[in-house]
Parts: sequence; structure tokens; C-alpha cells
Amino acid sequence: MSDRYIDFANSDLGRRVVGAVGLPQPARLERWQAGRLRPVEGTLLLGGGPLAVKVAEFGQRLTGEVVSFADDALGLPTWVAGLGSKLKAVVFDASHLGDIDQLKQLREFFQPLLRSLDRSAKLVILGRAPEQLDDVLARVAQRALEGFARSLAKELRSGGTLQLLYVAKNAEDQLEGALRFFLSPKSAFISGQVLRLEACASQVQDWIRPLAGRRALVTGAARGIGAAIAETLARDGAEVVLLDVPQAADDLKALAERLGGRALDLDICASDASARLLEGLPDGIDIVVHNAGITRDKTLANMTPEYWDSVLAVNLKAPAVLTQALIDGGALRDDGRIVVMASISGIAGNRGQSNYAASKAGLIGLAQAWAPLLAERGISINAIAPGFIETRMTAAIPFTLREAGRRMSSLGQGGLPQDVAEAVAWLAQPGSGAVSGQVLRVCGQAVMGA
Amino acid sequence: MSDRYIDFANSDLGRRVVGAVGLPQPARLERWQAGRLRPVEGTLLLGGGPLAVKVAEFGQRLTGEVVSFADDALGLPTWVAGLGSKLKAVVFDASHLGDIDQLKQLREFFQPLLRSLDRSAKLVILGRAPEQLDDVLARVAQRALEGFARSLAKELRSGGTLQLLYVAKNAEDQLEGALRFFLSPKSAFISGQVLRLEACASQVQDWIRPLAGRRALVTGAARGIGAAIAETLARDGAEVVLLDVPQAADDLKALAERLGGRALDLDICASDASARLLEGLPDGIDIVVHNAGITRDKTLANMTPEYWDSVLAVNLKAPAVLTQALIDGGALRDDGRIVVMASISGIAGNRGQSNYAASKAGLIGLAQAWAPLLAERGISINAIAPGFIETRMTAAIPFTLREAGRRMSSLGQGGLPQDVAEAVAWLAQPGSGAVSGQVLRVCGQAVMGA
Repeated sequence: MSDRYIDFANSDLGRRVVGAVGLPQPARLERWQAGRLRPVEGTLLLGGGPLAVKVAEFGQRLTGEVVSFADDALGLPTWVAGLGSKLKAVVFDASHLGDIDQLKQLREFFQPLLRSLDRSAKLVILGRAPEQLDDVLARVAQRALEGFARSLAKELRSGGTLQLLYVAKNAEDQLEGALRFFLSPKSAFISGQVLRLEACASQVQDWIRPLAGRRALVTGAARGIGAAIAETLARDGAEVVLLDVPQAADDLKALAERLGGRALDLDICASDASARLLEGLPDGIDIVVHNAGITRDKTLANMTPEYWDSVLAVNLKAPAVLTQALIDGGALRDDGRIVVMASISGIAGNRGQSNYAASKAGLIGLAQAWAPLLAERGISINAIAPGFIETRMTAAIPFTLREAGRRMSSLGQGGLPQDVAEAVAWLAQPGSGAVSGQVLRVCGQAVMGA
Repeated sequence: MSDRYIDFANSDLGRRVVGAVGLPQPARLERWQAGRLRPVEGTLLLGGGPLAVKVAEFGQRLTGEVVSFADDALGLPTWVAGLGSKLKAVVFDASHLGDIDQLKQLREFFQPLLRSLDRSAKLVILGRAPEQLDDVLARVAQRALEGFARSLAKELRSGGTLQLLYVAKNAEDQLEGALRFFLSPKSAFISGQVLRLEACASQVQDWIRPLAGRRALVTGAARGIGAAIAETLARDGAEVVLLDVPQAADDLKALAERLGGRALDLDICASDASARLLEGLPDGIDIVVHNAGITRDKTLANMTPEYWDSVLAVNLKAPAVLTQALIDGGALRDDGRIVVMASISGIAGNRGQSNYAASKAGLIGLAQAWAPLLAERGISINAIAPGFIETRMTAAIPFTLREAGRRMSSLGQGGLPQDVAEAVAWLAQPGSGAVSGQVLRVCGQAVMGA
């Protein structure tokens, strides 16, 4: 399960060998450690349009060192050089760029910074969703940001990441929650992504234990990514209800005990699964994470009916049926959060995974279908699409494919279960209602896409 | 410019070598030859839901050999085996699949066919756009099609392609035009794509010379992809107006002469470009193809202001300004067709191309911004996103990158300028108004995406 190449590439000898022969140079990514308080440990630079001023208002809650660049006689290059410290995080508000000529501000702002970025630097560009604008040229400029952001994300080194957040006009009070995630090591394995923040009732939130007082259900929780999700939700204060198949009951119980939660051994495909689940949640539920999933890979030419049916049943039908039951049965509370686990295979398709990709694409459909129906109750539902994550499942992949899966991404390595778990935990926060019906890739900006 | 590996892999010796050591096996793709009459030369199989019956109504115009499978006692495997001929084209209507269990019909229908497909077989799955459905489970099932279709497209061999077309309820009369393209060798280098057909006023169309009586402007027409577009539009009956920079005037004039069209040497970035263009089109224009584009690759850290400005000016600002001028000046006729040339770099971003990717993403924005504004006049505007195309530009790429660009796709090879040109010519048809504001990748289903 460990990626020995990263260890080698970051050793004294390895650095020289790797550099000399032009091999990939994956960095050791900084990750969130329990007990840490501030999202950014280092200098946060703000620049660009009016949203940067908004960010400055709460910037001191993100880190002790916030600096804002306002155009001055020195010019940015001299100014940055004069800062004397590397930049740990950068937010550039591009929302005011209203025509094509103004796009040059992107080059002017970012170019002088690139050599002053700290390791695992976190960059965010803010914009306005093109489809929410009237002016043609403004739409063009804002859409252009996407090509720029995804390219620059591919050029960052030393574990740097960059995302583009389209912020709706009245969603500016939703920025803090999003930036606390995307500027912190919690989003270590997310890069090159585009997300939309919509207006929503602002939720008072405890930033240290954001899930305190919330009850969370995680399926497939006995091991791997599911277990990491359970741990992370518990770390953030949630009371966890862990579900897995009866065969995994021992692992499940041990984990539930350790996290002070409850275990529910249940086959989610059983005909009485909905009834038993509702029975097991007499006080309702705030957070539902449909994580359980299986693979049964074969090209379609060789796929048995059992392979097709079992993957569709576990990965797609069970989440669809249980979601409906939790809603119909009144168990899902207002301001609830649902997260389904898709996959980049569900976005791009994958050879030998027509069953799996269909199920994962269907889950994206489930999030997109329910999101507008649940918005009125303040409930959000989103899909996370992991790329290559280091688990027992991916450890079983043949060497060459495994190496390709790891290296064919901007970060040049696989992610950890914790990376997926952090994304779930963020979407599960009361303050994350600004995001719904969307897909968030946790993939190190893998090359594979559609 | 030629891909010698394909020649080798398809030689007697090469086939044995390539097979023995597991190298990629790109097929020689069948392409449309001038003078050909029928989209499909071979057997077309129809199956699935009610849209298959619609297709059967005009199926005889696509090929002499249409067969429809209606469930019978034999079962599909026996029935297909009994056909006695390979399948050149397959249309499966999945629009009626309304829940997750019904998705198994995909496996049941396609599996028995896969060993009976002819070379360069053309497969199309029909569905309903999820966002146009009310029922949650129907939305999920229709969205799942995307994961299935993209996966199966990756499994096809011998140059086979597969697309998913989401057909709006009242857009069924728009199917013939789309299938004439996607079931014919005109779409040789397009696979794994998802497109939406919307209702629009049905246009009477001459299928042999679909662009007869239409005047088309092509920018960057002197050579490469632009020249191929000009030739193809002329082949289909359009009167062509070819535009390029003054330095290319000789090539441009020669091509215009050969195609019986007009040459317009003009720098599209000049301040008087709009005025001169309108002057050059006194009788208006039906088809506008913004093909002119340049690359000036550098990582952002090393990008000069000139590199940024010139790429944005040529690739994005000029098309935006000229489009506005053609509309404001009244030159663009009702039922007009605009095509802009994006790129998969504009979708996924690319290292060293932050300027180029921004410009190409902006062009996608241009199509998305104008589409709803022009719909009332019957005008469509779409973006084509080529992948690796064999041109003088890509011939200059270093060997390893060039090989990666060619092979990292389902079809295992680069496309030809003709492949892009055929897509433009299809979108330029009077009968293609069902598609607007969309992006069509012509990329052999390249791995790279977002």
C-alpha cells in the first residue's frame, strides 16, 4: 500500500538520480494533523478584485500572516521579493475580469509569485459562474479562467494545488468555509478543480469541531476509505453510525467502539435494508455518506450477468433506494448533507469497467437529480470522485497499471484515504450548503477525464 | 506528418510483432471518400426502445441493409449469429430505461454483438437528457448511460466508435442528420462523446450537397486544418470565403481558386478587421468557422507578455470581436451556423499552455454565451475541441510527447485534418440546428480530460 517511489524520490540520493534522468518528482504532501487549529500556517497573499477585500475581513482567522497586494509604484515582482517570506496560500479574485484584455491580470499577478511559493502551497482563484452573467464578454472571460486555472495547476511543483471557485453574487458569506478547506492541507490531493458556491442560509459554525451535534451514517465503514471517513467525521465532532456487511461485523464493531459510535451490520442490498436502516436510526440522521462500493472488472464481451448485477446493486441501487427511504421515512433532517462516492471512471469511463462506470455515473445523476428537490430544506447532496487512492483495492492492481495510475496526474502520486475523508468531512459541514449537485474530484488532477 | 507506426502495426510482419509484445494496435480508420452516397455501407442493426422504430422509418436511406431486433424466442445471441454478416453500424435506443434494474438491457444487447462488429463499426446509444426528466430514478438511469457509453467506447477494437446522443422529446425529427454523421466514416476520429439534440425547426436538406446555396467564411484557411475545412465545406456545396493573414496570401489565393471561392487576406487582429470583413461580405454569410489560432507555449513562470497577448488576441479576442461585428452589422443570416475551434487543452488545461488553454476555454464560453441569444433566429454556435491532429504544428512536437499524444487515446492514433473538417461540415448543415452551445471533441477519445 505504500508508494516507495515517493520515499526514494525524496531521499538525498533519489533527488539527484530523479533530477538527472528526468523522472517524475512527486512531493511529500503536507496533510492535516489532528489538533491543528489554523487552516494556513504561513503567509496568505490576497490580490485582485473586490472579493479579496471580503476575504481580508476574515483572513486573520485563517492565519496570523495575511498580506494584501494593492497596486503600488513598486509593482508586484519587487513587492513580492520584498516580503521576505515564502507564500503558503494565495487567493486571487478574478471575478471582476469583464473582458478578454483584462485576463492579462492573471499573468501579471501569478508570474512573480511562482518562485516564492512554499511547499504544498494552496492557490485559489475566485470568479463568477459564466452562466450567471449577462454580458457576453464577461462570460467569455470568466469561462477562460477555467483553462488558465487547470493549466497553472498542472505547472505547480512541490505539492502545490490550485482551484477555481465560482462564487455567486450573494454567496460571498460562504467563502470562509470553502477557503478553510481549499487553503488548508485538508485538500492536499485536490487540484485543478472548478466548483460553484451558491447562496444559502448562512450557518453558524464551530470551526474547530464543525460537526459537533451532528449524527453521521457511513456505509462500507469497516475499512479503507470508509473507515477513514468515519474517523474524520468523528474527529470533527460527529456522532457516527457505521454500517457494513455482516461479514465485516468484527472490524466494524471495533472501529465504532474506538470512535464512540454505533455499528450497524446490514447488507444494503437486502430487501429489508430500508426498514432495518430506519429502525436503526430512530432519532434521524444529519449526514449520510454512501461509500460502500465494489468492483467486478471485465470487458463487456466477458462480463457475466452476476458481475453486472452485483456492481449496479451495491454501488447504485442501494444508495438510491436508501436515500429515498431516509427521505420518505422522515429520517433525514433539515440541513442534512448527503455525499455519494463516484469515481473518475464514472466521469471518463474505463476499459473493463462498464458496470462500475455506469454505477458511478449514475451516482452523479443521483446527486444532480436530488439536489434541486432538497434545496428548500437546506439539504445538500454531492458526489466525490476519487482518482487513484492507496488502498488494499489499488494495491492489488498490476504494477505497470498501478504506476500509471499514480504518476499520470499533476501531483504524481496516489492519494490517501484521508484525502477523500477530508473532502467528505468538508461537504458534511453545516456551512457547506453553498455546494450542492456537484462533483468534486479528489484525484491529484489525474490526466484522465472526459 | 505521417504516423509510420500505424503502417507498421498494420503490415503482415508488424501485426505479428505488435501482437506478440503487447504494443498498441491502432487500426487504419475508414474515412469518407468524395462521391460516396450512403452513410453506412453494410448492415445497420437497430434495437432497444421506441426511438429505434423512428430510426427504422428512415433507415433505408442510410443503408440498403437495415435489421431490427425485436425480442423473440431465439434470444439475441442466436439471432445475431444467424445474421451471417458483420455489423457496420448499431443504434440502441436506451431512452426508455427508467430505473436501475433496466440498465442490464445494455449488457444484454451489446454483449452478443461485440464479436460481430465489422471494422470501423459505428455505434450510437440514444437516451434522454437527465436534466430534462422529472423522475429521480429515470434521471439516474439516463445519467448512468454516460459511464457505460464512455467505457464501452474504450473497449471497442478495429477503429470502432461509440457515442451517446441525448434526444429531447420533440427532437426526434432531428435524428437523421445526427445519425448520418455519427454512423458514417465522417466521424471516424470521434468516440466516447455525449451530445444533446434539442428540438428545432426542421430544415429541408439535400443530403448529398447539404451546404448548397450557403456561403461560408473560414479563418486561418491557407493551410492545415483550415484548408481541410474549406475543402470539405466546398465539397458539400458551400461557396467559400477564405481568410488568412497577408503573409499567406499566395497559398490562400491558390486554394480559393481551386475551390471556386474567394480569398480575403486580412489580419483578424487589426483594428479595422471588423470593417474590412463586413466590406468583404456585402451579401452576408451563413456559416462562420473561427479556425485561426496560434500557440506560444511557455510555463507561466517564463511567459512573456507578448506570448500571452498574442495568443489571447488571435485565438479569442478576434473571434469574439468579429462575431459581434457580423451580428451587429447584420451580415450573419438567419439559420446561420458558427463553429469555434477549441481544444482539449481548453477543457483539461495543459502544462505550458496557460495562455492557449485560457483562449480555448474562452471560446467554449463564447459558444455557450451566444447560443441562447441566437436561438430565436435559428442560428447555432458550437465549439469543436480537437485532440491530437496530424499537422505541421504537431509534427514539430518532440518524439516522446508526440507518441504519447497519439497513443493515449482509445483509437491509439492522431486524427487527420479531414476529421475536424467533417465535424465542422456537419455542424454547418442547415439540419444541425438541434445542436447549439455544445462542445464536440474530435480526439479519438483521448485520455486527457477534466
